[in-house]
Amino acid sequence: MPEINADRLLGDLYALRRIGEYKTGVHRPSLSPEDVRSRHWLAEKLTAAGLTAELDGIANVFGRDRSPGRKLLMGSHIETQPHAGWLDGAMGVIYGLEAARTLGAGIDVAAWFDEEGWFGSFLGCRSFCGQVPDAEIDTAKRRGDDVPLRAALDQAGLQGRTRVQADPSRYLGYLEAHIEQGAELELSGDRIGIVTAIVGSHRFRIVFEGVQNHAGTTRMARRKDAGVALVRLATAINDRFPAIAHERTVWTTGQITLDPGSPSIVPGRAEMVFQFRDTEPAMLARLGEELDVLVAEANRGPCRVTLVRTGTTAPSTMAASFQDALEAAAARHVPGKYQRMPSGAGHDAQILAGIMPSGMLFVPSIGGISHHYAENTSDDDLVLGCQVVVDAAAALLAG
Amino acid sequence: MPEINADRLLGDLYALRRIGEYKTGVHRPSLSPEDVRSRHWLAEKLTAAGLTAELDGIANVFGRDRSPGRKLLMGSHIETQPHAGWLDGAMGVIYGLEAARTLGAGIDVAAWFDEEGWFGSFLGCRSFCGQVPDAEIDTAKRRGDDVPLRAALDQAGLQGRTRVQADPSRYLGYLEAHIEQGAELELSGDRIGIVTAIVGSHRFRIVFEGVQNHAGTTRMARRKDAGVALVRLATAINDRFPAIAHERTVWTTGQITLDPGSPSIVPGRAEMVFQFRDTEPAMLARLGEELDVLVAEANRGPCRVTLVRTGTTAPSTMAASFQDALEAAAARHVPGKYQRMPSGAGHDAQILAGIMPSGMLFVPSIGGISHHYAENTSDDDLVLGCQVVVDAAAALLAG
Repeated sequence: MPEINADRLLGDLYALRRIGEYKTGVHRPSLSPEDVRSRHWLAEKLTAAGLTAELDGIANVFGRDRSPGRKLLMGSHIETQPHAGWLDGAMGVIYGLEAARTLGAGIDVAAWFDEEGWFGSFLGCRSFCGQVPDAEIDTAKRRGDDVPLRAALDQAGLQGRTRVQADPSRYLGYLEAHIEQGAELELSGDRIGIVTAIVGSHRFRIVFEGVQNHAGTTRMARRKDAGVALVRLATAINDRFPAIAHERTVWTTGQITLDPGSPSIVPGRAEMVFQFRDTEPAMLARLGEELDVLVAEANRGPCRVTLVRTGTTAPSTMAASFQDALEAAAARHVPGKYQRMPSGAGHDAQILAGIMPSGMLFVPSIGGISHHYAENTSDDDLVLGCQVVVDAAAALLAG
Repeated sequence: MPEINADRLLGDLYALRRIGEYKTGVHRPSLSPEDVRSRHWLAEKLTAAGLTAELDGIANVFGRDRSPGRKLLMGSHIETQPHAGWLDGAMGVIYGLEAARTLGAGIDVAAWFDEEGWFGSFLGCRSFCGQVPDAEIDTAKRRGDDVPLRAALDQAGLQGRTRVQADPSRYLGYLEAHIEQGAELELSGDRIGIVTAIVGSHRFRIVFEGVQNHAGTTRMARRKDAGVALVRLATAINDRFPAIAHERTVWTTGQITLDPGSPSIVPGRAEMVFQFRDTEPAMLARLGEELDVLVAEANRGPCRVTLVRTGTTAPSTMAASFQDALEAAAARHVPGKYQRMPSGAGHDAQILAGIMPSGMLFVPSIGGISHHYAENTSDDDLVLGCQVVVDAAAALLAG
């Protein structure tokens, strides 16, 4: 099997880290000056690797192999979460670049725009898969500073370019490597994760409407306290979901707001942002039903409780052939030190899997940390992960 | 008994409402331009009423009677909560002005600075009672914009003025009228409330420390979710306090913050702002013990829970002689249409009661609404309340 160039791989990862460096991590919001710079840096690297490089009309970066025959598409994303890690996304893209250089032919590389959701949800890979109408781009704004996507694309000189659309006949499939972003591999002592499926998620805003009142003069018996209704429902979810859930089902209340949020005022309104994730559609449906029941129960109290669905992503299964190719390569390099596992985080591969066979490989995250500048993976694991992916890619290309 | 001038009383209330008018209410933060303007407006009114008017070094407004003999001190405050009601505070001050004009002698009037707590806790009346050291003024900043109190006093031209100190030998006592800010009077059909005691309050910040993590990749069993710990404790309080509390005991969680507050991140830190109130010291102590028990129970979970006491006010009892004088006056004007009741809200009178006999009268709040621009009281109730207070003041002055 062709051997990767470990120094070249690590050198490129280190170089990319310096664009928008923040402490030991990186801050590259989508279409920030640093993000735009990193896309051009990548295009130059892809060109130097012999590929035809292009930034498209939604800031996806492509490197296309000019040789004949069907290709394997490899990649991930290069923008980051705020003040976050250096490998989240970047690693999978540079693995693609290294695969192209090592194998010489058969590899297309993609850095999908905005996997981190600054402007929306998976805009880059969804655009490639034909799922983003122009109207969605017209209204998208960057979280934090509300810059319109159109203005940001214009400033980057990309406005008016065509958005590259997938030609599935060109591809054998899509292969993405990523840091695990969890502690499963580290806790089990494994060095490679082979993703079986990517979880789907159901996301909600739950709104509680009561009556705002003075916290000193309003008897408990007469209150319609939206905050009390909220903590009761949140507690009920935590009491009832475990009886339904599998070991890997997760649910999270990430945000709570009491309105007006003043120490001496009974909250008249409250909101919680809630989500649950699982790889099985049946489990997601069952949790959704239970949530409906709990909200109906909450509505028998003094406040009005409304469940607003803000987003749903379906689980997606990785292709068996891709899982097998990755496992064969892992077994060769680190026998007994790999596992098949679901991905609890979302990835571009979950969108690509809708139009072509897809596979994902994980490398360990030290301490399971991600979305934080302390995120890291050992150099040994970075090199091993790339070699396993390149071996699997070679095997898949060889049929 | 001397009769008040209803048109003059209502005319002054309407005029004061126009300074900082917001919808049907008023927005006059302490030492905002509007607040300063209203203090000078009041000083002119006090002067016109024959009193010696003064703004002191902490923006208290005083109108002093120049006739011999002991005085009754009457007043309340004139700054407001944000975008709040036109009568909360202002009514008691204008009642004092009207009492001075109606009785001709024996009434001193005060508008206490910052009862609404923009810069601290009861700064104006506590300064008058000798409870505010200079160091407290040095560090006080206005909530919302962090303007230092010293800078705000300087801008108002009050920096360097002496702060008037109470001379208890001058006074028979302190008499304050206020809107009820609750619905007790309206619900019972009564038109006058005679305050028996003002509740004490215990105020807390409760801090939950867990571990921040990815909401997709961190199994439930491994999480230390600070938000889950918070909603569990808040629910436990709501489950356990009712068994201890009296009918009028109240407790409130006014604010909840999850950190970082992102939909897909397990909160690593959370805070709730919590308080309880009662008129009985023994009840306050009992609730404090129960809270300690619940926090200790919460600390057996995966997160660290810390109870930070942010403030305590002791309950204060209104003087029996003042209650009797108010009741006699109420019984004369609206027989059977008044009640003795505790005050669930804090008032300047709770501080003044520490140095002189004090009494309070309530008028009904329409719909029990307060701290909102919709707060209101009927003109008939405004006139009646003033006449009852002036009768009681005359009786107290007559000995």
